[in-house]
Amino acid sequence: MSNQSVRDATNMKGNNRTPVTIIGLGPMGQALAGSFLHQGHPTTVWNRTAGKADDLVAKGAVQAETVTDAVEASRLVIICVLDYDVVHTILDPVSDTLKGRTLVNLTNGSPEGAREMATWSAERGVDYLDGAIMTPTTTIGTPSAVVLYSGSATVYETYQPTLASTGGSATHLGTDPGRAAAYDLALLDLFWTSMSGYIHALTLARTENIKAKDLAPFAKGIVDILPDIMDEFAHQVDSGHYPGDKSNLISAAAGMEHIIQTAQAHGIDTSVLNAAKAVAQRAIDTGHGTDDFSYLTEVFQKPSP
Amino acid sequence: MSNQSVRDATNMKGNNRTPVTIIGLGPMGQALAGSFLHQGHPTTVWNRTAGKADDLVAKGAVQAETVTDAVEASRLVIICVLDYDVVHTILDPVSDTLKGRTLVNLTNGSPEGAREMATWSAERGVDYLDGAIMTPTTTIGTPSAVVLYSGSATVYETYQPTLASTGGSATHLGTDPGRAAAYDLALLDLFWTSMSGYIHALTLARTENIKAKDLAPFAKGIVDILPDIMDEFAHQVDSGHYPGDKSNLISAAAGMEHIIQTAQAHGIDTSVLNAAKAVAQRAIDTGHGTDDFSYLTEVFQKPSP
Repeated sequence: MSNQSVRDATNMKGNNRTPVTIIGLGPMGQALAGSFLHQGHPTTVWNRTAGKADDLVAKGAVQAETVTDAVEASRLVIICVLDYDVVHTILDPVSDTLKGRTLVNLTNGSPEGAREMATWSAERGVDYLDGAIMTPTTTIGTPSAVVLYSGSATVYETYQPTLASTGGSATHLGTDPGRAAAYDLALLDLFWTSMSGYIHALTLARTENIKAKDLAPFAKGIVDILPDIMDEFAHQVDSGHYPGDKSNLISAAAGMEHIIQTAQAHGIDTSVLNAAKAVAQRAIDTGHGTDDFSYLTEVFQKPSP
Repeated sequence: MSNQSVRDATNMKGNNRTPVTIIGLGPMGQALAGSFLHQGHPTTVWNRTAGKADDLVAKGAVQAETVTDAVEASRLVIICVLDYDVVHTILDPVSDTLKGRTLVNLTNGSPEGAREMATWSAERGVDYLDGAIMTPTTTIGTPSAVVLYSGSATVYETYQPTLASTGGSATHLGTDPGRAAAYDLALLDLFWTSMSGYIHALTLARTENIKAKDLAPFAKGIVDILPDIMDEFAHQVDSGHYPGDKSNLISAAAGMEHIIQTAQAHGIDTSVLNAAKAVAQRAIDTGHGTDDFSYLTEVFQKPSP
């Protein structure tokens, strides 16, 4: 693509939507680019390897030949790649071109990585906003999408109408650029641990000749009771007060031991539940058996020797 | 209490509700007895240690002096105690009195324990139904209660209108007496593992200065996306087909490793997530890295050497 056509994308007539550049066309990058196109934003795309842009070009995206062309095409540059190392590999050589533009980084990363990228950007005269996409690619552009942002409030306010193309809800969590990544990690922690528990439950059920489709409706019933418990535990953790009047760690550990014994009798791996029970046991061993389950925040924060 | 007053409870005039005996007055037994009283059932209660029946007696329950008196008071005897060993300790001496009556066992137990109790009952001429209460004591008598039953369909059909006093939904899962306990264990497996993940997420958030009350709304957002994923994984597990086209074990393990590294950098115990990641890694190491996360049912079922 010539520089002329890149400028055409930027200055497209008859369309007052903000031009956007998307760098990275993995499944999420493609979904993002599709959502901006769908909302009528002139959209320029670039990927390290070829062949990922064909569908998007068919829908009206402009495919840049080089990263420099891609960055030049829009004042708003969104990157969504494998990790922050790849972000640097791609953007370090074009930091001069990025200067004066806005970089929104939707790559999965750590809070430290996000803060480092914010510093890198500030040192190069680039406005920076960090973001974390909390929902699957299929939600992008739908009411189900959830995206968290943190860092520059000015950037967020300026581009919020454009970023809204991703659909669903967007939340600016504050000016610490690492905050969105921290939420992301904590929420993925909950997600993967819960999914591990669900798959283990399906395994245990199968050894008792219970089909997954028969257990699933009741598993969803368990999910229904989680929000209230989550609020209660959150209150306990923030207050540092773990009353244990409705349930406590001794009964929780006994319940887990019960599951472990039955699973082991069926020859099932119980390593995840063993680890969870061991954490509860450490609380009991240090005199907190009659505290609420939420006391385990204190145990997790002090790794065993 | 005299035998006469026990008979009075059984034959109470002006009340056509089925008399019920509740053995075990821990928090759940008390909640159960309260729900039967509330629905107008003549309710006899007994507990191994004294002083647990006072509130119930004030509401109209009859407190039996002996287990024999308690069993004689009703054709329907419900027991809810610590475990099946306690069930035997209490009921073995009164099996002659139980003969010809119906025993509904709502004590938490294993599938094997439930099947053993069904055999024990059959050998003594006692009709037996096993049950598992899936929701907290506070839900009993409300629309939120969930109780699972398995074993004799005749017993369930006969006493279903009476058992409905516990509120909410009741489901008869089939004639295998162990089935309710098996569902219970699998669902508690999901519950405790998820709760462990949530508490760990709150711990990780706290090290990033995120209050639990600020994370909780987003944690509930994660909970919202679980039901659809649960259905999809259930379908994969029942079909034995783990496509991995939307997400796969390699990306899941990378995500978990990411969380582990950040948590460890904050000095947080990561033993639960380490165990979950190790299970995913075993799948990857045996050539299933591009399979869906649900493939882990196969790995859990084959414990590591």
